[in-house]
Amino acid sequence: MVILVAANCDRFKAVFPCRGGRAAAMSEGMKSHRAISRRAAKVAPFLAMDVMREARQRLAAGDDVVRMEVGQPFGQAPRKVLEAARAAMREEPLGYTDAAGLLPLRERIARHYRETHGIDVDPARVFITTGSSGAFLLAFLAAFDAGDAVGLPNPGYPAYRNIFHALGITPRLLPAGAAQGWAPRVEEVAAKLKEGMKGLLVASPANPTGAIIDDARLRALIETVEAAGGWFISDEIYHGLTYERPATTALAFSERAIVINSFSKYYAMTGWRIGWMVLPDELRRVAEVLGQNLFISAPTISQHAAIAAFDATEELQERRAGYAANRDLLLNELPRIGLGALAPADGAFYLYADVSHLTNDSITLSRRLLREARVAVTSGLDFDPLDGGRFLRLSYAGSHDDMARAVERLAAWMKENA
Amino acid sequence: MVILVAANCDRFKAVFPCRGGRAAAMSEGMKSHRAISRRAAKVAPFLAMDVMREARQRLAAGDDVVRMEVGQPFGQAPRKVLEAARAAMREEPLGYTDAAGLLPLRERIARHYRETHGIDVDPARVFITTGSSGAFLLAFLAAFDAGDAVGLPNPGYPAYRNIFHALGITPRLLPAGAAQGWAPRVEEVAAKLKEGMKGLLVASPANPTGAIIDDARLRALIETVEAAGGWFISDEIYHGLTYERPATTALAFSERAIVINSFSKYYAMTGWRIGWMVLPDELRRVAEVLGQNLFISAPTISQHAAIAAFDATEELQERRAGYAANRDLLLNELPRIGLGALAPADGAFYLYADVSHLTNDSITLSRRLLREARVAVTSGLDFDPLDGGRFLRLSYAGSHDDMARAVERLAAWMKENA
Repeated sequence: MVILVAANCDRFKAVFPCRGGRAAAMSEGMKSHRAISRRAAKVAPFLAMDVMREARQRLAAGDDVVRMEVGQPFGQAPRKVLEAARAAMREEPLGYTDAAGLLPLRERIARHYRETHGIDVDPARVFITTGSSGAFLLAFLAAFDAGDAVGLPNPGYPAYRNIFHALGITPRLLPAGAAQGWAPRVEEVAAKLKEGMKGLLVASPANPTGAIIDDARLRALIETVEAAGGWFISDEIYHGLTYERPATTALAFSERAIVINSFSKYYAMTGWRIGWMVLPDELRRVAEVLGQNLFISAPTISQHAAIAAFDATEELQERRAGYAANRDLLLNELPRIGLGALAPADGAFYLYADVSHLTNDSITLSRRLLREARVAVTSGLDFDPLDGGRFLRLSYAGSHDDMARAVERLAAWMKENA
Repeated sequence: MVILVAANCDRFKAVFPCRGGRAAAMSEGMKSHRAISRRAAKVAPFLAMDVMREARQRLAAGDDVVRMEVGQPFGQAPRKVLEAARAAMREEPLGYTDAAGLLPLRERIARHYRETHGIDVDPARVFITTGSSGAFLLAFLAAFDAGDAVGLPNPGYPAYRNIFHALGITPRLLPAGAAQGWAPRVEEVAAKLKEGMKGLLVASPANPTGAIIDDARLRALIETVEAAGGWFISDEIYHGLTYERPATTALAFSERAIVINSFSKYYAMTGWRIGWMVLPDELRRVAEVLGQNLFISAPTISQHAAIAAFDATEELQERRAGYAANRDLLLNELPRIGLGALAPADGAFYLYADVSHLTNDSITLSRRLLREARVAVTSGLDFDPLDGGRFLRLSYAGSHDDMARAVERLAAWMKENA
């Protein structure tokens, strides 16, 4: 544990000497940077993005790096999306939209729930956001006050926890590892609610594990949270990217759940910064008021383009088949080269590998893999501040060739070093 | 005053019965909507956007409304911007960028400060944001903690105050009306800093008044705030839209000021949601870390397109000449029809009209003007929660024909009703 904290400190010294030792941060870090807010000092860098920056710099310098560090589909958005964006530039003034977004997009998303999940959603409950990032900010502000404790699975997407810190919400990390079946246990959630926890956020499929929460557990989690008067937030950004069985939306079990989704992953529109929420009726107006003030509206060209994303099924299913082939390759090959302790990988495009037989300092390991094996991966510490030093996350959203090259390089590196 | 509160209540009853009476809001509003956070309940609707929605609905229903309600340039972004967006779609994958944005755009903005203001800015200090909205959120979070008091001019852009409420920052409204020369007085700022105020945000040219702060006052405000160890934030979103004399950037007087700007107004790119900050060195890394977590990055197509905005000078200057002609028309005609008590209007594209000879309930007045005169304008209560009931804001960012029609309609309405 001491080693992990030390590893952490190394990464954060650019901003503040050590997040492990808060007293040290207050006395040392705050002295030289006294004017940075205390809440900002609690927000940890998103390591995957720092690795992405270094990988880009190396690529720009002519170094041939295989990129498995960031959750980003390779290449461009679907052709129909690009066509719709071009048409919007010809035909629309592209000014601000209503805070909740263009009605045709909201209606198209409602239709998607009917067609894909058999669930009726009033378009008035659909709120268009600037990526899922914008949705998190609005949902957390609408539902939680500073000082509220809210449950998060550990491991989990680091921005949840970091946005919480920025907004004064206390993240209550709930074990969601192999021992818990890769999702928070219902009993633990119930106990924390009794202690005053105000809500729970889960993702299924999850980042970084890929795990899908089975229907019985999902329903039980929702019912437990809502019975206690808390908010259940369901991050469904990896819906559509499933390989064994589909994932169920929280809307199947509740009209009060806050559902967050995005066009970034399945629809391959990361840089377009466009996502959505389905809100319970009682949060519609407050989300609109917050959105007017915090965002004005989501990018207009992206809103027009996103409508066409639902017509790009063929291209998107091809893409999904590509991820599935990548996944098969890695699930076959990684165990052979000594990287076999993997989380379920039911969906999304990540493998979460237990590398505790190699190190408990996965930051140094990821740095060495980038520099020595020319494969960019992410330390588990992004996703799990407690045990993440024993894990790596590998994204297989790249091309199949890239995955094959990554396996080769990792095999050679492991042979030499492990 | 009671009347204004009542008028306010009317607008807010959709979410919470009355923002004027906090006790009432807690007992009534919170009973039926108990699960909305207390901080969200403090955030007031942005009236201009509600008016915009109604104006749009009326237009869609075939009603011929002249739109002066929203600060939005008419028509489309410059041709070169659209060309650059098309090229980016052909040539770039449009995935996430670094949190601080594309280097060529950051370099181009730095060059803009050299060419336009004669000031050297290191591109590393330029941070690309999702509109100025994104910049506010990052700057406020980086610089201020919950509980900090920060000064804002009153009247002023309502989102400042509302984002403050969302983030737990206390807005310290500083009189900035006719009696103060349309900007906070230095003595008052100094006094509030002594009481513990942590910073000051001003805009020049300002929304809703159009007032430019003269150099001597701007320098004195900055020096006063920084001498007290506070943060000076300069909203320069209306730079470029000035009609009598240019506006000076805060960077001329300080390397520690936080400067916020955007492509929305002068560059006519509202719906593209793209802006920037120039940050002091000590905030660079913390802004990056916050940006990674809260936004990931600004819309990529907009970043590529914005680079070309600096080459669209001819088109943009034509546009500015159009606003100047609109401004001349209104400054000549409005006094003749009884709407003459106007704030300076040195820049931006707003007129702020004192209508206290007509009403102290400008919400009802704006609603009547929309329905009876078919001219959409905004109540001053968006910008000034204390005296805004006696003011209207009229945006002249529309076409010249629209402005002429607005004058005709307002003249006829005034003749009949005032």
